[in-house]
Order: sequence, then structure tokens, then C-alpha cells
Amino acid sequence: MIIIREIIGAELRKRRQDQGRTLREVSGDAKVSLGYLSEVERGQKEASSELLSAICGALATPLSEVLSAAGHQAASQELQLALAGRVQAAHILAA
Amino acid sequence: MIIIREIIGAELRKRRQDQGRTLREVSGDAKVSLGYLSEVERGQKEASSELLSAICGALATPLSEVLSAAGHQAASQELQLALAGRVQAAHILAA
Repeated sequence: MIIIREIIGAELRKRRQDQGRTLREVSGDAKVSLGYLSEVERGQKEASSELLSAICGALATPLSEVLSAAGHQAASQELQLALAGRVQAAHILAA
Repeated sequence: MIIIREIIGAELRKRRQDQGRTLREVSGDAKVSLGYLSEVERGQKEASSELLSAICGALATPLSEVLSAAGHQAASQELQLALAGRVQAAHILAA
């Protein structure tokens, strides 16, 4: 199953790290706790829509860019799952 | 502020209606309550990642397509907000 919070969290972490900024800096700018931002980035907590907007604002990144990047990443994962399913089916047929 | 749950909810509702299916049918297939699905579609409740996957599964729609469509919609809203801000700034300068 594709878990959107993991994909969006990884995307947010990547953008923060690309900017050379710390969790402390971005959480301060977004007015969320450092622990919360860290959990969101690791896909362990669902960010509410309002906090996701605040985090994108702190990263000076349009929400649309994060969503589109997440869409591409999800498509890549879906393709991998589909291919893995096809390989498994081929093995069952060949057995 | 762009509210992602409203954008994703509208996208899910559009896809369900395009398929000519009722809230009852899709909520049954997704194993979520009808009231919950209705609130998600109207942007009144944040769907967890797991339930969003279940709803997409019930709609036979890849999550990646919903995310990408949401990204386009968010970009459109961001552009409208930016243009509205520019018009407002022009009015202030002209006053």
C-alpha cells in the first residue's frame, strides 16, 4: 500500500536538506514543534492541511510542487508494485 | 491558504461522480462509513493515508493520479492568489 504521509514527509525532508536548513530552523519558521516536524518528515505523523501549508511556507515552496513531486513518487512506487506482482504471477504460472 | 484536504476531497468526489457511483457504493467498497467519505469529499475531514489509499482502491484510481491532479489544482489556486495579490498591490500604488 502506498502511504502518502511517507511520500510527502520524504519530499519535505529532501527540500529542507537541499536548502541546508535544520529541523530547528524550519520548525521555528513554520511555528510547529521540532518533534512534530521530525515525525512528519519521517512519515510517522499525518500533517493536517493547515500545518502542511505552514511547513511549505517555511520552506518557501509552493504546496503544488510538493504535491506534484509526491504524485510522481507515488507513480514510481505503484509501477514497482505492479511489476513485482507480475513477476510473482509469472513464478506461480511457471511452477 | 491552500487547504489540501479540500482539493483532494473535491478530486475524489469528481472521480466518484464521473463513474456514476453513489457515496454508499464507494464507502462500502472502501470499508469506510458513508458519513466519513462524505466529510472527506467536502474537505471537512482529513483522510488518513491508509483510508485515502482505501478510497482510491474503491475508485480503482491510482493514488498517484489523485496527487498529480491535486498538484495541478493547487498550482491553479496559487496562481489565482498571486494574481489577486498583484492586483491589490497595484490598487494600493495607484491610490
